[in-house]
Amino acid sequence: MKPVVVRNIKRADPNAIGTLGAAGVATTHEALGRSGLMKPYMRPIFPGASMAGPAVTVLAQPGDNWMIHVAVEQCQPGDVLVVGCTADNTDGMFGELLATALRARGVKGLVIDAGCRDVKPLTELNFPVWSKAISAKGTVKSTLGAVNVAVVCAGVNVEPGDVVVADDDGVVVVPKALAVETAQKAQKRKDDEDGKRKQLEAGVLSLDMYNMREGLAKAGLRYVDNPEDV
Amino acid sequence: MKPVVVRNIKRADPNAIGTLGAAGVATTHEALGRSGLMKPYMRPIFPGASMAGPAVTVLAQPGDNWMIHVAVEQCQPGDVLVVGCTADNTDGMFGELLATALRARGVKGLVIDAGCRDVKPLTELNFPVWSKAISAKGTVKSTLGAVNVAVVCAGVNVEPGDVVVADDDGVVVVPKALAVETAQKAQKRKDDEDGKRKQLEAGVLSLDMYNMREGLAKAGLRYVDNPEDV
Amino acid sequence: MKPVVVRNIKRADPNAIGTLGAAGVATTHEALGRSGLMKPYMRPIFPGASMAGPAVTVLAQPGDNWMIHVAVEQCQPGDVLVVGCTADNTDGMFGELLATALRARGVKGLVIDAGCRDVKPLTELNFPVWSKAISAKGTVKSTLGAVNVAVVCAGVNVEPGDVVVADDDGVVVVPKALAVETAQKAQKRKDDEDGKRKQLEAGVLSLDMYNMREGLAKAGLRYVDNPEDV
Amino acid sequence: MKPVVVRNIKRADPNAIGTLGAAGVATTHEALGRSGLMKPYMRPIFPGASMAGPAVTVLAQPGDNWMIHVAVEQCQPGDVLVVGCTADNTDGMFGELLATALRARGVKGLVIDAGCRDVKPLTELNFPVWSKAISAKGTVKSTLGAVNVAVVCAGVNVEPGDVVVADDDGVVVVPKALAVETAQKAQKRKDDEDGKRKQLEAGVLSLDMYNMREGLAKAGLRYVDNPEDV
Amino acid sequence: MKPVVVRNIKRADPNAIGTLGAAGVATTHEALGRSGLMKPYMRPIFPGASMAGPAVTVLAQPGDNWMIHVAVEQCQPGDVLVVGCTADNTDGMFGELLATALRARGVKGLVIDAGCRDVKPLTELNFPVWSKAISAKGTVKSTLGAVNVAVVCAGVNVEPGDVVVADDDGVVVVPKALAVETAQKAQKRKDDEDGKRKQLEAGVLSLDMYNMREGLAKAGLRYVDNPEDV
Amino acid sequence: MKPVVVRNIKRADPNAIGTLGAAGVATTHEALGRSGLMKPYMRPIFPGASMAGPAVTVLAQPGDNWMIHVAVEQCQPGDVLVVGCTADNTDGMFGELLATALRARGVKGLVIDAGCRDVKPLTELNFPVWSKAISAKGTVKSTLGAVNVAVVCAGVNVEPGDVVVADDDGVVVVPKALAVETAQKAQKRKDDEDGKRKQLEAGVLSLDMYNMREGLAKAGLRYVDNPEDV
Repeated sequence: MKPVVVRNIKRADPNAIGTLGAAGVATTHEALGRSGLMKPYMRPIFPGASMAGPAVTVLAQPGDNWMIHVAVEQCQPGDVLVVGCTADNTDGMFGELLATALRARGVKGLVIDAGCRDVKPLTELNFPVWSKAISAKGTVKSTLGAVNVAVVCAGVNVEPGDVVVADDDGVVVVPKALAVETAQKAQKRKDDEDGKRKQLEAGVLSLDMYNMREGLAKAGLRYVDNPEDV
Repeated sequence: MKPVVVRNIKRADPNAIGTLGAAGVATTHEALGRSGLMKPYMRPIFPGASMAGPAVTVLAQPGDNWMIHVAVEQCQPGDVLVVGCTADNTDGMFGELLATALRARGVKGLVIDAGCRDVKPLTELNFPVWSKAISAKGTVKSTLGAVNVAVVCAGVNVEPGDVVVADDDGVVVVPKALAVETAQKAQKRKDDEDGKRKQLEAGVLSLDMYNMREGLAKAGLRYVDNPEDV
Repeated sequence: MKPVVVRNIKRADPNAIGTLGAAGVATTHEALGRSGLMKPYMRPIFPGASMAGPAVTVLAQPGDNWMIHVAVEQCQPGDVLVVGCTADNTDGMFGELLATALRARGVKGLVIDAGCRDVKPLTELNFPVWSKAISAKGTVKSTLGAVNVAVVCAGVNVEPGDVVVADDDGVVVVPKALAVETAQKAQKRKDDEDGKRKQLEAGVLSLDMYNMREGLAKAGLRYVDNPEDV
Repeated sequence: MKPVVVRNIKRADPNAIGTLGAAGVATTHEALGRSGLMKPYMRPIFPGASMAGPAVTVLAQPGDNWMIHVAVEQCQPGDVLVVGCTADNTDGMFGELLATALRARGVKGLVIDAGCRDVKPLTELNFPVWSKAISAKGTVKSTLGAVNVAVVCAGVNVEPGDVVVADDDGVVVVPKALAVETAQKAQKRKDDEDGKRKQLEAGVLSLDMYNMREGLAKAGLRYVDNPEDV
Repeated sequence: MKPVVVRNIKRADPNAIGTLGAAGVATTHEALGRSGLMKPYMRPIFPGASMAGPAVTVLAQPGDNWMIHVAVEQCQPGDVLVVGCTADNTDGMFGELLATALRARGVKGLVIDAGCRDVKPLTELNFPVWSKAISAKGTVKSTLGAVNVAVVCAGVNVEPGDVVVADDDGVVVVPKALAVETAQKAQKRKDDEDGKRKQLEAGVLSLDMYNMREGLAKAGLRYVDNPEDV
Repeated sequence: MKPVVVRNIKRADPNAIGTLGAAGVATTHEALGRSGLMKPYMRPIFPGASMAGPAVTVLAQPGDNWMIHVAVEQCQPGDVLVVGCTADNTDGMFGELLATALRARGVKGLVIDAGCRDVKPLTELNFPVWSKAISAKGTVKSTLGAVNVAVVCAGVNVEPGDVVVADDDGVVVVPKALAVETAQKAQKRKDDEDGKRKQLEAGVLSLDMYNMREGLAKAGLRYVDNPEDV
């Protein structure tokens, strides 16, 4: 790891980001071919939060938030800050003051593979955070990391400028080169789902809607009338 | 495991189900002799949810929701769907479309020993789910399981038709043969608790209400005035 | 462990308790020199809860709440009950009836390194609980523990009368001998933070506010314009 | 749960048990249609242990080993003791003295969904135990459970007399009604694997041995020569 | 937390330490009234290790082993080093060089509520370590802690000079004031167990040896001959 | 994720691999600037295993080992296979037959962020595996992944051809572009450590060897003679 800050990053297409944000995490993850999803331990600190934006990335040492302070300066309006750590950590590396600083620069929210504190003021600020833990444990500012390099966050490799979509279902990351194509697929899935939802509301079975019965029979599924026939 | 769907199951007595649902999870669990409780990792996806109903059961392969689609057809109004897996899994095996299909059949809610996604739309639908995880991870439809056979879900063996009671405290399962007897005991506990609550509100100590002082003394409990007397 | 109940304990200074409660968990933890914080698995059973008070302590056997009943009698208005266990446990050792009894004595809330049940009635009572788990599992009353002795709760040693501060960020414990001094430091931090918050809201970078640039450069941080310059 | 001890149980066919034990856990699990496997947290207390036998089952309260003492009397030579708990528990519910008692009755080993202690003497006795944890935490003898009723152990429902196979890979349970059929399938898999192993040792690719290439191509797998061709 | 090193500590009685070490963890824990046991996640880095000695204690910041270097100087032959952290941590805070330094001073081994590295050289040195994790993650030396103050390690409060007993079953801590009394009780238990072991080896049932039958019947245990009689 | 197999990858310098393997995981991790370490849940399936080699990478769907079969063909003598999954999984995706196939091609071992089975035969084959879990759970072959693309494995991004070093301390990954430089640093650290080890064996304190006393005093560490002076 080289202790470096990269000033200029290429951000994903803003229209694609908008479409993916509207599609949400589950649909985006499917549109990306079922990849890019952070581990399910990443949870929003308050319900109902959602956001989408290009990633400014931070590689931090566990329990050390020095590089988050460094990263603030590299953020633009609409960005999302993504923090990965070099080892497992639940310390409260982020809180109200940093959120105030990010908010002042128009940053949409934070994704951090560590702990977050000041849940109440962050909720009042309506500044959304997806984190591994909630913890008041204070942190030091003693070891360098890096800003705007590739970081692994909650099991996903994030490059600066990649699209981060986050909501109540978790966090998904779309590589910026695939953003436009994935946004189109996500939009298509969403449109398709509207039609399916209507059929299901009308009582059509998904067994029939998806034509599953033949495949199930071929795979060997048997229907019996009573438990004693099993 | 035989890949089979059992069409006709015997459901627990509906009056007993009503009583147990009104009694709630904690009281039902006590009335059943402190058994039948699913592991505490089973949490509702939104607060305040509660339900009770007879179980339609699904045995699924991890990350494969094919059999949930199959199970929808076997559900009746008032049923609860219970999904167990053959191995630990947190993938999002259930979401908005399946909830729409279940809702169209009058199903009350879902208990799944795996992940759930589409938390926001499910909350808006007011369709309650108790799950092991929230995860947008998509699933396949490639391996058979079974419907309406006995399944282990979050540490409890569930037979089709057993009573499932779920609320903010978790999920408890009452074997259908014991439903009526357990409902009576639960009702009695509830009535008793009302009297106890009133005494405690009036400042009576539970030490006195339960006559614990003698037992404590016999077991050897000592009271001292000051720390240095220990 | 001696099975004993200590009747008279020295409680921390009430003014200090008030100041620390107003400062909240994160600030109190910093003021104490970044110690005293319980493990982050301790979570409030409903959001927005907060409290501060002197600890009445209980050492319980896992799955056995006999000593909690004993402890109720030792509580005074404004106290906080703290329950540690001799082994890991998630059983629901506390519920509505005990909360009713504590409320009748003016107790502010509970911190328990085990499970809690009756989440809905406790929420309606607005009786706050920080626990390791939510579980309806019933408990026995068969083995003695102790009341008002030192107990380890969620990784922190708690002496009777120590200050317990709890909010959405978790739980922190201040030894009673340090309460006044810590309250002063906490107040000072809070006052300082108000000034910092205003600067950050105005767009000042924390890099400048804290004079970090020189230290970062000395530690070897490099700024480059583009990814290929890394 | 009824507090009861069932004296006479039907044990699975001894020849089938022998075959399944020789086949081992992984092969038995496959032969059973990929079900019946206990959760992977069940680990042997020393490496190299293996056993197979019919289950004598115990349903115990967490931290209470009274029913294990009761169960000893119901064991016959060749049996395996299986202990499930009504709630999660890691206490050391089993140790050297109980192992001595079981050994005196010819019991092959223990599977317990809780903790085990006395690892060193048990290793010296060569008495194998698969447990969830190793813990010296002592237990009480105060609440009844049951012996030789169905119990859920580490996620699997075990009926008295079912076949338990355990080795370094974990623990699998075969319902006694399926023991003979599963033993035949397991033997066939084992024979097949011998042939496959020889081919693979000779350098044949499993891609060819299993004829996977066509299916992979049909599913859309592409081969490219260089990373830049992706 | 005050950053301080206490030079002179009172160590527990050496004869008592010898007796407790010979009795082992499980017996010592029972003799102490079933308390003092560290959480079961504390495991030896190689099997068969055992030790007993008075504690030299370290309170460290997570991921920072500065204070372990400080503590070496305070150790005497026969001591055991015990390291607690102010927050959860799995970093490799201890390795071969520190073990070499401790070995040169006659220290018996280490108990650390964090990670350990250099497992192979430590095994070759036969220097026993009980830790929460094995991890090569390097640590910093930037924040003070304390030496020879009370620390919570894996759920137990350890005072300098307390007896630490560790073996394959885990780690137990005996307050130095109770060492002699506990050693006597442990010796008695050990002697008693020898007699019991012989009876059990001879086929006596623990049901009879402990006279449990009457208590079981009184509690309501029923024996039935067949499953259908339940 | 594109379902693709890359045939030609650039492997790290073999001499550097040799040096890093001899240096071991802890030293390599330090030489790389304390990064590149996989999470500590990755453990060898038998003690004493160690290996180093260039990575052939597999991105697999959870519970689906189809792509591992595909990857075998891409392996060369001396390679290490690294398997990442698109979601958390503990199923036994690897066993004896695949090990036989890899061994026939001269592959040194496996690193898999999922489960492994056939521990006993793999131990007899002396084929080392570092995995997240041991589980006999069988897997399917139904969904494509990719071979020789970047994969995240246990928290680390691995590019094809990167150096993987694994031993009892865990697994570390060195980007191939940094292999030579890191090998030199690792060698230097190892040489330095030999000198330090000798000083420590002779009783020199690390406090003096590293000149820590001044820094500690400046940071505010106080020495007191007795506990009451704290």
